Amino acid sequence: MSKKPGIPKGTRDFSPIEVTKRNYIFTIIKANFEKFGFQPIETPSFENSETLMGKYGEEGDRLIFKILNSGDYLAKSNEQFLTNKDSLKLTAQISEKALRYDLTVPFARYVVMHQNEIEFPFKRYQMQPVWRADRPQKGRFREFYQCDADVVGSNSLWQEVELVQLYDSVFTELGLQGVTIKINNRKILSGIAEVIGASDKLIDFTVALDKLDKIGEDGVKKEMLEKGISENAIEKILPLFNFTGTISEKIKKLANLLSTSEEGMKGVQELQFICDSISEIGLQSATLDLDVTLARGLNYYTGAIFEVAAPQGVAMGSIGGGGRYDDLTGIFGLKNMSGVGISFGLDRIYLVLDELNLFPETVSATSKAMFLNFGDNEAKYAMKTIAKLRQKNIKVELYPDKAKIGKQFQHIDKRGIPFAVLVGAEEIEKNSYTVKNLTTGEQQTVNFDALLEILKD
Amino acid sequence: MSKKPGIPKGTRDFSPIEVTKRNYIFTIIKANFEKFGFQPIETPSFENSETLMGKYGEEGDRLIFKILNSGDYLAKSNEQFLTNKDSLKLTAQISEKALRYDLTVPFARYVVMHQNEIEFPFKRYQMQPVWRADRPQKGRFREFYQCDADVVGSNSLWQEVELVQLYDSVFTELGLQGVTIKINNRKILSGIAEVIGASDKLIDFTVALDKLDKIGEDGVKKEMLEKGISENAIEKILPLFNFTGTISEKIKKLANLLSTSEEGMKGVQELQFICDSISEIGLQSATLDLDVTLARGLNYYTGAIFEVAAPQGVAMGSIGGGGRYDDLTGIFGLKNMSGVGISFGLDRIYLVLDELNLFPETVSATSKAMFLNFGDNEAKYAMKTIAKLRQKNIKVELYPDKAKIGKQFQHIDKRGIPFAVLVGAEEIEKNSYTVKNLTTGEQQTVNFDALLEILKD
Repeated sequence: MSKKPGIPKGTRDFSPIEVTKRNYIFTIIKANFEKFGFQPIETPSFENSETLMGKYGEEGDRLIFKILNSGDYLAKSNEQFLTNKDSLKLTAQISEKALRYDLTVPFARYVVMHQNEIEFPFKRYQMQPVWRADRPQKGRFREFYQCDADVVGSNSLWQEVELVQLYDSVFTELGLQGVTIKINNRKILSGIAEVIGASDKLIDFTVALDKLDKIGEDGVKKEMLEKGISENAIEKILPLFNFTGTISEKIKKLANLLSTSEEGMKGVQELQFICDSISEIGLQSATLDLDVTLARGLNYYTGAIFEVAAPQGVAMGSIGGGGRYDDLTGIFGLKNMSGVGISFGLDRIYLVLDELNLFPETVSATSKAMFLNFGDNEAKYAMKTIAKLRQKNIKVELYPDKAKIGKQFQHIDKRGIPFAVLVGAEEIEKNSYTVKNLTTGEQQTVNFDALLEILKD
Repeated sequence: MSKKPGIPKGTRDFSPIEVTKRNYIFTIIKANFEKFGFQPIETPSFENSETLMGKYGEEGDRLIFKILNSGDYLAKSNEQFLTNKDSLKLTAQISEKALRYDLTVPFARYVVMHQNEIEFPFKRYQMQPVWRADRPQKGRFREFYQCDADVVGSNSLWQEVELVQLYDSVFTELGLQGVTIKINNRKILSGIAEVIGASDKLIDFTVALDKLDKIGEDGVKKEMLEKGISENAIEKILPLFNFTGTISEKIKKLANLLSTSEEGMKGVQELQFICDSISEIGLQSATLDLDVTLARGLNYYTGAIFEVAAPQGVAMGSIGGGGRYDDLTGIFGLKNMSGVGISFGLDRIYLVLDELNLFPETVSATSKAMFLNFGDNEAKYAMKTIAKLRQKNIKVELYPDKAKIGKQFQHIDKRGIPFAVLVGAEEIEKNSYTVKNLTTGEQQTVNFDALLEILKD
């Protein structure tokens, strides 16, 4: 095989600098998850198909990667399905396992399976890849990481408060100032639909309202009318078309609008508690805002809904999202387990940090110094020093071959290694080291302690 | 669906404490890889089938997990294969991708694909899961991590020296004193076979010799005779049946035995260089030993062969292994790229550390303190303090609900959280905190600075 090899579409190789930058983000998210009391779990990359199928809708089922059974998988398959080339029906017979599609369903499965070992409320985080057979496009991949933090087993709104703080803490530590944490509540959306007498059109209504930015007030009204929402109903929600002001002002407007809806008012109270608490405790660099058009995962969330927008001026969709779902584990037979969680969009955060040049210069995959190789004797002397430096946690290497000096320097340069150390006969005799700073060109001959001092950060 | 959910056989869920202990090992291995100048890469979980198939022998091909094509995968499949239920032939038509079986072949693929961006010699490490449809058994899983460090693009034996040091450095830092790094050389095995005139029986010969510990000298001789190795030949290798002494003494014995084999003597010289260098530079806690029966990956390695044995008294197979392969990337059309690398067996290292109680007590997934919840007012006060503590990187939580105190203390106890913090009306008035040490039972009322001092490590 001499054809140049490739990788499946929608997947990626990560080079050393890319891995290092990604790990920089992972490390900060992980440290914050733990500061907030979340504990890590990990689940298998593939689950039994029955665990995943039927949990993400029809579209989701199609996008799940199925794993072919091992061995003679056709032996027991239905001849009819084969003759008819019925891919859909055959799948269940020749594939029992499937790759994880998200981290939420495996988490629900984990909670149910380990319910007797878990001490509730259970705060878990999970940072693992997921796979989707989506059509790949810019920023959308078939293998990507999800970074999720969820709490199950308590209805306390303090958890919503904490999750807002968690977003603020992570983005502050990443140096990404000015993100907006948008909040809404499913109960408010239901309340609005109820008040205007269009409870059955909740989704149509929300989808249309969500387009306000793009198609304007008239466009939204037109779409609502087309979907069968009455002029009279639209009249009632006119305040939503010009929904500005502080969070408190917005909440007051909602309270007026929803005063006749019990569910709506429940949503207003929840929002009020969360927003008041955040306002009193304070955030470091993010802004909390109420966005009544926010409706992600409408079929899923039952309370708070979150979404994080990158700082103004950065053209990027949401870089995080989440919400409360009152029945996380019901799909696996464990009732009354309310959960609330948020997710960080690693790939997008990476792109935003890269665009804004926010990766610290110290995020580097390179060694601090490379010793030149002047032959076995000199190399042995160098290796003794290198062993001592590594025990002091300094990243340092020996050029492995006795190549021409020019070639060795070229390698050091291409690798972006900041210091070269030269040890020849003279240095060995004097127990010294000649260190060259590749950035400034400066060169000095020093003893071990001084060398250590130079190479320490 | 109310059946209690499960996970596929051979896979595992990892609980918070398990993830934390595993991460402790990962972190030390990673830090050492980087100290030694290795840089991280990551490759996709699945590769094109043609990248993997045929690289691990017939058995390997069977153990690779194949991914079913998406959509109507049967549409273009051969009717003949379907009618005959020919699983083997159909596979190539309905599956184009397969899960990674190891990290070496994807690395070779990476090197060839990115050869123009890579500055050689290239030292890379990779820590990612791999999947094998093996029969699961104790300590053998269908999904497990590999932790590999390899160098490609240089024949320098300094790399073998470094890899021995790297093993020593990792196991020393893990507190696992007394591991034995066994070394051998493929050229020595070839040389022995050549000297006794049994080059065609190299594998039979090595397999038999490898059993010396188990079946004794007579057993090995019997097996060799059965495999067609002559009495005369066996006579020549008698020294190997009682192969003791220091490394230098062993090397001398080999040099005598192999004096007529050019390849064998090349192996002796390589061993000598590596062992002399290690002896001069020194190791921290591991022992290097020459094991002439070591033959792992015989079809694969061309020079040094490594294997790491757990300390004496621990019943565990090898906890690491590796070697040099002269033609890593040839399978993908890039010739003359010598590589040498080692691997760490995460699951086994975990078991050894657990058995010997070597995980530090500080390896814990728990928070440092939990604030009790006495109601919204008190909780809000607590949350302000919690926010300040978290900004100081202290892991701390609020009990989310206003539950009975007994219940809250029980939760703190079950979670293994060492400190409880009580903030009631009195504490709020005095701007103070009552801290209870759950281990000693000691309780004191302090201000913020003192609280911070107590909760800092």
